[in-house]
Amino acid sequence: MAKKLNILMFSGEYDKALAAMILANTARQIGVDVTMFFAFWGLCLLRNHGNNDMEGKSFYEKLFSAMTPKGPEDLPLSKMNFSGIGKAMMLEMMDENETPTLSDFFNGAIKKGVKFYACKLSMEVMGIDKDELIPEVEVMNAQQYLEDALEADVQLFI
Amino acid sequence: MAKKLNILMFSGEYDKALAAMILANTARQIGVDVTMFFAFWGLCLLRNHGNNDMEGKSFYEKLFSAMTPKGPEDLPLSKMNFSGIGKAMMLEMMDENETPTLSDFFNGAIKKGVKFYACKLSMEVMGIDKDELIPEVEVMNAQQYLEDALEADVQLFI
Amino acid sequence: MAKKLNILMFSGEYDKALAAMILANTARQIGVDVTMFFAFWGLCLLRNHGNNDMEGKSFYEKLFSAMTPKGPEDLPLSKMNFSGIGKAMMLEMMDENETPTLSDFFNGAIKKGVKFYACKLSMEVMGIDKDELIPEVEVMNAQQYLEDALEADVQLFI
Repeated sequence: MAKKLNILMFSGEYDKALAAMILANTARQIGVDVTMFFAFWGLCLLRNHGNNDMEGKSFYEKLFSAMTPKGPEDLPLSKMNFSGIGKAMMLEMMDENETPTLSDFFNGAIKKGVKFYACKLSMEVMGIDKDELIPEVEVMNAQQYLEDALEADVQLFI
Repeated sequence: MAKKLNILMFSGEYDKALAAMILANTARQIGVDVTMFFAFWGLCLLRNHGNNDMEGKSFYEKLFSAMTPKGPEDLPLSKMNFSGIGKAMMLEMMDENETPTLSDFFNGAIKKGVKFYACKLSMEVMGIDKDELIPEVEVMNAQQYLEDALEADVQLFI
Repeated sequence: MAKKLNILMFSGEYDKALAAMILANTARQIGVDVTMFFAFWGLCLLRNHGNNDMEGKSFYEKLFSAMTPKGPEDLPLSKMNFSGIGKAMMLEMMDENETPTLSDFFNGAIKKGVKFYACKLSMEVMGIDKDELIPEVEVMNAQQYLEDALEADVQLFI
């Protein structure tokens, strides 16, 4: 039976998401099953830039939706972001070394069969609908996350 | 034998504490034993608002005590706190969706038998006495935490 | 066979590094094997203050090298750093309690046989050479980290 990696993606930051996605891609390359559960700020990573559906959102939900990152490339750095200057620098450095971007790792993870789940409660609180997320995502609650984590060999909270 | 979840609660932020408490409550609901070890900023979560005992504290310990959050509802957000505006917004959104507050999940965890431990070294460094913490807490050192974590099925550093 | 603790040290902050190092030292004291994999900001913890080799670095790599912490004692706090005031306060409080510093725990970990690995990709992106790191470190890639983590009893992302 294949080994399993389970990642709870709580953070909505470029560098932490990059770390998580590199681990997810690497795990698939050595035949390890990967489940990623996106909660709170991590949900921002799953947002589908084009589908920002304001209809049916409350005032706060609209505000929140407008203020938070819309997809992987929109995320700030966790440190030294400096209004985006630090992130631009990081991206240049990655480019100099021909390192794939977060979106590349993200798409790679989808192709390699990493399973993406969005946290039901986080979606409800933030007023995010399933059609605002990328189509590869399924919705899961905390209990389902835990049941999956209990079966995994490695669990990380990122 | 029951499965075990072990959480090292390092962070002192409302959103991260909420994630941890939701997991702790959910785990108990499916019969999983839960140990939470509160260290560093996580200790702020265990402070008992009324019992802020300045006697016997050094100058720095008094200053530190005055500057850090006193209990769950006093914690800031990890992102977009904006001097509390972001947190107020988050609380409104939770209220709109009838999501329990952090204190509700906290009290739920206590009722459901989640075991709370405060890190001995963190208490010493921060000058926090046991009687400044909620009565349900026991004091534990790093070795005891590790021994518990080694027996657990899932370990998370939050 | 000895139990194993595996820490992915992503953060470059004094308090989080302190938590990781206390766990690593404690684990060795009870006969648990410890692997620490330093990636992204965590790499700053391994920098050897004297060996800041600017030769061969690109413009961004030089800038990045100058802007990031150079070794354990140079790290900021994750919270309440206040341009270093919060950290100075924390260090005073640790001193009052005769708590060892991060460097002490760091050196203790080396002496006790904690295995230190630097993330290959992070080094490439940040333009950090092996001779800029402390000599006790070996270079490892994400796959080697994962293989080690899969064999461990406790895995933490810090």
